[in-house]
Amino acid sequence: MSRLDSFIRRMQAQRSCLNHAADLVRGLPGHALEFGLGNGRTYDHLRSLLPERSIYVFDRQINAHPDCIPPDDLTFLGDFRETLPQAIARLGAASVLLHADCGTGDDAANRALADALTPSFVELAKSGAVLIADREINAAEFDALPLPADVAPGRYFMYRRV
Amino acid sequence: MSRLDSFIRRMQAQRSCLNHAADLVRGLPGHALEFGLGNGRTYDHLRSLLPERSIYVFDRQINAHPDCIPPDDLTFLGDFRETLPQAIARLGAASVLLHADCGTGDDAANRALADALTPSFVELAKSGAVLIADREINAAEFDALPLPADVAPGRYFMYRRV
Repeated sequence: MSRLDSFIRRMQAQRSCLNHAADLVRGLPGHALEFGLGNGRTYDHLRSLLPERSIYVFDRQINAHPDCIPPDDLTFLGDFRETLPQAIARLGAASVLLHADCGTGDDAANRALADALTPSFVELAKSGAVLIADREINAAEFDALPLPADVAPGRYFMYRRV
Repeated sequence: MSRLDSFIRRMQAQRSCLNHAADLVRGLPGHALEFGLGNGRTYDHLRSLLPERSIYVFDRQINAHPDCIPPDDLTFLGDFRETLPQAIARLGAASVLLHADCGTGDDAANRALADALTPSFVELAKSGAVLIADREINAAEFDALPLPADVAPGRYFMYRRV
């Protein structure tokens, strides 16, 4: 499998998980949180899935396509270690869909980042919230959810806040 | 359609066209040329399709994944306006698969770039060569080819050097 093949599968898995998560939280009031805006493609997809919700975005800096830049009042800009405590203070446990795609190229750094973020995910997620992540999340408060049928195990991860 | 949907379709179209082009040039000796290395994903895909051919790569600078960096002797590094005359002098019309994915975000700049590159594509392409491009190529020497069935018209372009 070439890196192009692998990339296409990863994008498809990401989209399937976002679509599935949006279905799962239908009827459960609350915000969506996007950790890692990047080029803004998944943010744009979330907007299309959840037109009625506030989607808060966290990133170190804004490098997105001009059409995919979130409003200032829904943006937490800066280092996660500073913006997450701000978000917890401001929003509390009021979010029902959390998407964490923080992947760079460095596996060890990504693992460490996911572990550092997890306690904040726990505090921000409302009971019943769905967390979608590009790597495994280890927390007693998150139960693993079955993946959509077209997503290979280990390619993406989904959890439900107990 | 979200930008994520659109991006996935574009990647799938690109892959289908590369696969189809590799089939079309089977049995026709010659090199492959990749214009725009980028992250190296399509280069990696071309390598997997054409393990027996030399794949020459053109880009302004190398920003690819470490696993997708072409050998120095197959790389034309620098401004296309300087490297294309060098490639024409060194290779002549000896290439049978040319892939031009020079897209940035700027449509007018991309159109101008494609037009500027086209005379060099004509000189580098062997008779019977297949050119795959992310935008329309206008040259009497290139006949439009039918696209693979899963590629929507206008999403990617294929030509045969007469």
